[in-house]
Amino acid sequence: MPRTRRRELLVAGAAGALGARIPSAEARRRSRRSRLYDVVVVGAGLSGLIAARAVRRAGRSVLVLEARHRVGGRNLDHSIGRGKVAELGGEWAGPGQDRVLGLARELGVKTFPTHDQGDNVYYRDGQRKTYSGDIPPASPVALVEVEAAILEFNNMAQEVPAATPWTAPHAADWDIQTVAKWVADNLHDQESRDLAALAIRGVYGEEATQVSLLDLLSAITGVGGDFNTLIGSAQSIRFVGGPKQLSKKLAARLGRIVRTGTPVLAIEHGRDGVTLHSARRSFRARQAILTPPKPAIGAIRFTPQLPPAYDQYLQRQPMGSVLKVNAIYDRPFWRDQGLSGSAISTTGPVQIVYDNSPPDGRP
Amino acid sequence: MPRTRRRELLVAGAAGALGARIPSAEARRRSRRSRLYDVVVVGAGLSGLIAARAVRRAGRSVLVLEARHRVGGRNLDHSIGRGKVAELGGEWAGPGQDRVLGLARELGVKTFPTHDQGDNVYYRDGQRKTYSGDIPPASPVALVEVEAAILEFNNMAQEVPAATPWTAPHAADWDIQTVAKWVADNLHDQESRDLAALAIRGVYGEEATQVSLLDLLSAITGVGGDFNTLIGSAQSIRFVGGPKQLSKKLAARLGRIVRTGTPVLAIEHGRDGVTLHSARRSFRARQAILTPPKPAIGAIRFTPQLPPAYDQYLQRQPMGSVLKVNAIYDRPFWRDQGLSGSAISTTGPVQIVYDNSPPDGRP
Repeated sequence: MPRTRRRELLVAGAAGALGARIPSAEARRRSRRSRLYDVVVVGAGLSGLIAARAVRRAGRSVLVLEARHRVGGRNLDHSIGRGKVAELGGEWAGPGQDRVLGLARELGVKTFPTHDQGDNVYYRDGQRKTYSGDIPPASPVALVEVEAAILEFNNMAQEVPAATPWTAPHAADWDIQTVAKWVADNLHDQESRDLAALAIRGVYGEEATQVSLLDLLSAITGVGGDFNTLIGSAQSIRFVGGPKQLSKKLAARLGRIVRTGTPVLAIEHGRDGVTLHSARRSFRARQAILTPPKPAIGAIRFTPQLPPAYDQYLQRQPMGSVLKVNAIYDRPFWRDQGLSGSAISTTGPVQIVYDNSPPDGRP
Repeated sequence: MPRTRRRELLVAGAAGALGARIPSAEARRRSRRSRLYDVVVVGAGLSGLIAARAVRRAGRSVLVLEARHRVGGRNLDHSIGRGKVAELGGEWAGPGQDRVLGLARELGVKTFPTHDQGDNVYYRDGQRKTYSGDIPPASPVALVEVEAAILEFNNMAQEVPAATPWTAPHAADWDIQTVAKWVADNLHDQESRDLAALAIRGVYGEEATQVSLLDLLSAITGVGGDFNTLIGSAQSIRFVGGPKQLSKKLAARLGRIVRTGTPVLAIEHGRDGVTLHSARRSFRARQAILTPPKPAIGAIRFTPQLPPAYDQYLQRQPMGSVLKVNAIYDRPFWRDQGLSGSAISTTGPVQIVYDNSPPDGRP
């Protein structure tokens, strides 16, 4: 099995970050005479900023409201000096992710390959083994089961359209079971089960007990049909200086229309358009685009309420929960020992480790 | 299988009902000099009102804040005149539910038996059959499978403590599968599967695809260990004048400490206690008790944020979704035809029907 990596830092409690301040009657009065935008975009992560750019390119007026005091959403880079960063949030791209790679080219953000030279470490039951390539030195039984599972995932995914997974002939059967249940039913060796759980954790930042099998299959289709891509090459490209630059550069081009520190707490919508209330004032638009994670959207008060089915959907899209820790060394000493820095462990709190060095290998 | 009935109207989008108004800086300033309660209870449904009563009985000061302009939460009765009501929300009690029955006695709310005389109707594939007793005239195969499933549910439930289901030896196995998946794996006849889905819908107001098997088993333990109780006798007692009276009478005794129309939108908590912000003002307390449904609690802004694990839990407790319709006739004409008024259908939008007449059978 290829190295399993953490793809995204899904921040628990993002909704809470919206803060506790809310619009006064005065703010509402002011909004009545405020400007009417064609579109207000909520959220200044990549989705929101790209949406705002598209609206402006179409010749329409647009405003972006961001709850946090920064742009970038789930891309969050921590500066370690000299233009280098430790990525605290999402960090990888991969072959076929043409839009984000095209955006990087357009914005002048260079990419570099994820470090993958040297042996990997596999740690299980107190035993440390090294291995090269993508297959950890698990027991032969576990390896056979894991390979069979990947084949079966890929086979099932063939009938699942990435954009409309619910139209797959077996969609109902696959959506009533968690990935964990499928693994429990189909893998019988404990080591292979542990490796499967680890892979899901790496891909989703979430337990296999919480993910529907259909969702996993549509994710496989989404990366081209091979589970190995999901846990492997989809994590093979990094951004020099960190991925948050994409958002920062987009926001810089958009200029004053991006307002940070402006949590949208309530939205009124009707025939006359949309009024979005933040703590200190309100904004009017013909239309609004909401890009926050689902639980954060669910925490916005809508008047009138959202359609019940959509509200129910929002209640069923929780965030995952993962801790990502960056340890910074003067130099990547493991490389001298012929190690890649990648390690997977089926025990202990630290289960997935990788070399997250800047392009030149030095902080 | 006993008649399956709707136990509770789970209102989709309850969170949205909190409204869009929020505390101004002025309100916050006022709160600094406001009274410090020992406890503020959020929510004036049965739980909140009982909690407030307990606090007051303990000699502590208490305030109840309710978002809606009424008390009663998911008990909602619609007056049809002459002291009679059509219950729009939860309506039943059953043997063993000693606390709510004791409360009714204490408050002078009489109970009466759910009407169950006469034949029931079973509708499937365009065929209407009548039957007496609890077992619908399904095919022999379906009946055998359903009976076997109920036995198996009850057997599994024996090892599940109602209050701590996660300590059951097989808790992990049962929590990674939905009830729908268990049914798909263990029932092979379509009619028995349909009846199982119907039963879950009746008990939960939610699809079997959304409920973990472990949750169902703990619910079975909660009613004494028999699935039949869950779908049968737990729905055998009604309240004369409607169950909302319990909340109304409790609130009347509590008096001015119950404030309706006061949605709590934000809560600050720390060593100095708790500050709860509503639209127009803020309230301070040493401690707070939150009784709203989980998604509504999740829509409150907490400062500091809730612990991530609890926030994650709130994100994983969605409401169910069911429509309940009361049709009012001058008299229960079906009784003259020897029918109970109960009908179950495995097709069509109306799947569960029952005689919801007032005690004397007349509106």
